[in-house]
Amino acid sequence: MLTRIDHVGIACRDLESAIAAYESSLGLIVVSREVNEAQGVREAMLQVADGPAGASSYVQLLEPLSPDTPVGRFLDRRGEGIHHVGYGVADITVALASIGARGVRLLDARPRHGSMGASIAFLHPADMGGVLTELVQAAPPE
Amino acid sequence: MLTRIDHVGIACRDLESAIAAYESSLGLIVVSREVNEAQGVREAMLQVADGPAGASSYVQLLEPLSPDTPVGRFLDRRGEGIHHVGYGVADITVALASIGARGVRLLDARPRHGSMGASIAFLHPADMGGVLTELVQAAPPE
Repeated sequence: MLTRIDHVGIACRDLESAIAAYESSLGLIVVSREVNEAQGVREAMLQVADGPAGASSYVQLLEPLSPDTPVGRFLDRRGEGIHHVGYGVADITVALASIGARGVRLLDARPRHGSMGASIAFLHPADMGGVLTELVQAAPPE
Repeated sequence: MLTRIDHVGIACRDLESAIAAYESSLGLIVVSREVNEAQGVREAMLQVADGPAGASSYVQLLEPLSPDTPVGRFLDRRGEGIHHVGYGVADITVALASIGARGVRLLDARPRHGSMGASIAFLHPADMGGVLTELVQAAPPE
């Protein structure tokens, strides 16, 4: 069902500093920046490795737009660090139905818009060993 | 420098329960079980996606051998969840030298033995945005 580890989402207090640190330390390159008002984040995707279209892997750096957002509360509670992991799937509607039928609680019953045109949905961390888990169907190649 | 997201390492209190949950929810399959006395863990690698030899991606489930181990202390402090992320590299000695020269503190100045015959080394989380970061040079194909 899963096709890859699509990304690790890392919560940071200052996006530009975090980008600079990951560019400098690991030589990663920013391939997308977005503000996602619905999720309350300013974010950057840094490509870890090339892949066929829609199959690359990324570090996603996330700065909260305000303290009263999920990532803002995460930072207050736990400090900077890994916030979630995203796995690639070929068809997110099929994957959500299958995973829901296996008894995992879905935070998103239907896919919503994610980074870089992807369709995404989150699974409940309590059913995933404490890990906030995202499914990602990458946007079709242009 | 990085070739892939090799794995996400997830700390759990009970390895068998965590394996059952990940098998059931995401359909993952255990490809390796090991006890690593040096790291104080009992662990399982579950394959997320096929890849060319040495280039697959995994969920690594980690149960501490005792409370007084790094993963045991992590569980006490933060509960179950993502413990670290591992990135693939082609040559870990070259990668460590390069990353160290960029000012990142290395928890392992020299590679040591990791899961499935890999050579691994950890980077200091304080230099990686709060993320315990591992480099992984997979074992050569048999």
